[in-house]
Amino acid sequence: MKAGRLGQLLGIDYPVIQGPFGGGLSSVSLTVAVSEGGGLGSYGAHHLRPGAITKLVAELKASTTRPFAVNLWVPLGREEEPRLNDVELGRHIERIRPYYNALSIDAPSAEDVRSQPCFDEQVDALMAAGPPAVSFVMGIPPHRVIRRAKRLGIAVIGTATTVDEAIALENAGVNVIVASGSDAGGHRGSFLKPVRESLVGTFSLVPQVADAVALPIVAAGGIVDSRGVTAALALGADAVQIGTGFLATRESGASVIHKKALVGSQARTTVLTRLFSGRTARGIPNRFVREMAAHEEDVPPYPIQNALMQPIRRAAAEQGRGDYVNLWAGQAAALTPVGLGAGEYLASLVEARRR
Amino acid sequence: MKAGRLGQLLGIDYPVIQGPFGGGLSSVSLTVAVSEGGGLGSYGAHHLRPGAITKLVAELKASTTRPFAVNLWVPLGREEEPRLNDVELGRHIERIRPYYNALSIDAPSAEDVRSQPCFDEQVDALMAAGPPAVSFVMGIPPHRVIRRAKRLGIAVIGTATTVDEAIALENAGVNVIVASGSDAGGHRGSFLKPVRESLVGTFSLVPQVADAVALPIVAAGGIVDSRGVTAALALGADAVQIGTGFLATRESGASVIHKKALVGSQARTTVLTRLFSGRTARGIPNRFVREMAAHEEDVPPYPIQNALMQPIRRAAAEQGRGDYVNLWAGQAAALTPVGLGAGEYLASLVEARRR
Repeated sequence: MKAGRLGQLLGIDYPVIQGPFGGGLSSVSLTVAVSEGGGLGSYGAHHLRPGAITKLVAELKASTTRPFAVNLWVPLGREEEPRLNDVELGRHIERIRPYYNALSIDAPSAEDVRSQPCFDEQVDALMAAGPPAVSFVMGIPPHRVIRRAKRLGIAVIGTATTVDEAIALENAGVNVIVASGSDAGGHRGSFLKPVRESLVGTFSLVPQVADAVALPIVAAGGIVDSRGVTAALALGADAVQIGTGFLATRESGASVIHKKALVGSQARTTVLTRLFSGRTARGIPNRFVREMAAHEEDVPPYPIQNALMQPIRRAAAEQGRGDYVNLWAGQAAALTPVGLGAGEYLASLVEARRR
Repeated sequence: MKAGRLGQLLGIDYPVIQGPFGGGLSSVSLTVAVSEGGGLGSYGAHHLRPGAITKLVAELKASTTRPFAVNLWVPLGREEEPRLNDVELGRHIERIRPYYNALSIDAPSAEDVRSQPCFDEQVDALMAAGPPAVSFVMGIPPHRVIRRAKRLGIAVIGTATTVDEAIALENAGVNVIVASGSDAGGHRGSFLKPVRESLVGTFSLVPQVADAVALPIVAAGGIVDSRGVTAALALGADAVQIGTGFLATRESGASVIHKKALVGSQARTTVLTRLFSGRTARGIPNRFVREMAAHEEDVPPYPIQNALMQPIRRAAAEQGRGDYVNLWAGQAAALTPVGLGAGEYLASLVEARRR
């Protein structure tokens, strides 16, 4: 199995990109293992401050000479710097206070909630650090960012959830487009229309994007085993991006309780929810999602809800409380093999193609 | 390209089943063209009275010696024989009266609305007529029906939208399972859980169903061209079922305005709506869907809403009013080739595999 034109562009041996999960689910050892195995390891850095991004890229460069990608979230115009007065913020905190209490942690301060990493500063740090590739979700990276990346020889990967988004990304000048179908786990990156109007299945999205743009296409969403890799390439993709499958590997930063949840028949059911971050993401429903379901529409936007929930997500993962943690998973999660190393898993995806 | 174990079971040359669209969108000439071309033609008969089913099967048998399937909808327990008093019925009629008026037609009488075909009588007529295969959506066909079909040598095809539904159908004794992903156009056949909790993309659903059951599997939803056929087989399907693509062929019973809507970029956007029938179905949004969107949750259940809308659907199709007609379409509709005959289209799906 060869990686074709995308392999040449990115310098990878196999047409497999590891999904760039953020919020601490990525790990340097996973990124490195995938890149050393001949795929493109990724690291989701949207939650990191500029200094941490600088350190991250240095650590990755010191750990592998192979290409890797670092991912950021483009701010959505309509959500940018949401202002919430103290009364409103207090109301949202009171609603989830029972969960802070259940985990014996404090609610974040208003200052913590309001001081989130700034995209422009993140991008500056990232470009200065100079990773081999950068990937973006949630929007079109600004023109100045794409221009700077090109000058520096950094490949720019954009993410589309609809054909129109793919065309917009191609017009903006990115080098590679990930076509992320509604089967995918984690956050939906829709940016031209609301998420609920942008849920196109991977099977339908990939060939339409392949027909609509000239750039190399990466299929994402529901790809877990070698059957999925073969099918995605047949649909017109140049490569695949796999999130859930790599999340379950030994090297990932996911908690033990998260990895356990990805195995077996309960992983067949996933839901889309804004409850964990203020943006819509797909995961396995648990007690928190069920108890809070009535408030789904009244959750403050990202990054407010994300900041409010961060201590809960972290503490629940540490304490092994699967009932309160964000169990991101794609719709084919139940196909995930148990307990593999990332290199071994990557090999299982591409070896079968040699038969 | 061979049809494998499913080909032997159904007696077809190619692993392609034409989706059994009901409500007048099927046509004898389409069913016959697909079956004569080496696939399995289907006819959706859920809207027909027993006498019409008897005539239909006789006509199909007289037109082809090849196998074909006739499809019925299994009644959902919770909706069966819904009772609506005259006041409620009147309220629902008044809401859509502007559309009756716009099309210069009368609202149906309360008697018409309440006298819908009875499933048990439909099945009796169908079994007595003895088609080569019967297919079902919306539920598990009753045990007595499966037993009778087996005694008569009629193949029974069930339709699942989740892994659990596939397992339930296998346990009930059907011969073939269609795994219908959320990419699919037309009515969603979910029966164990509500439709909104059963939206699994084709890419994710097919390999999980293939792993969960021993029966031959047919992939449905988002398959329009030969890339889709190749991908579906790679994911573990024994065959594909294609709705939208055949709906666009010359022989189908779809209106000119419907076939026209399937071509081009406006077909990239589809929505799920209960407005046309009282059951959730996927189609291209038009003026009727937009104007009535606020009433989506207050639509009476099938078959009441279906009966109320039947004159509107029919008149709008006849009068070429795309703004009022039910434009059923899957999420890959925009890939549909224009104006092909069904045999030519079927050949395009399987010929490419010979390269």
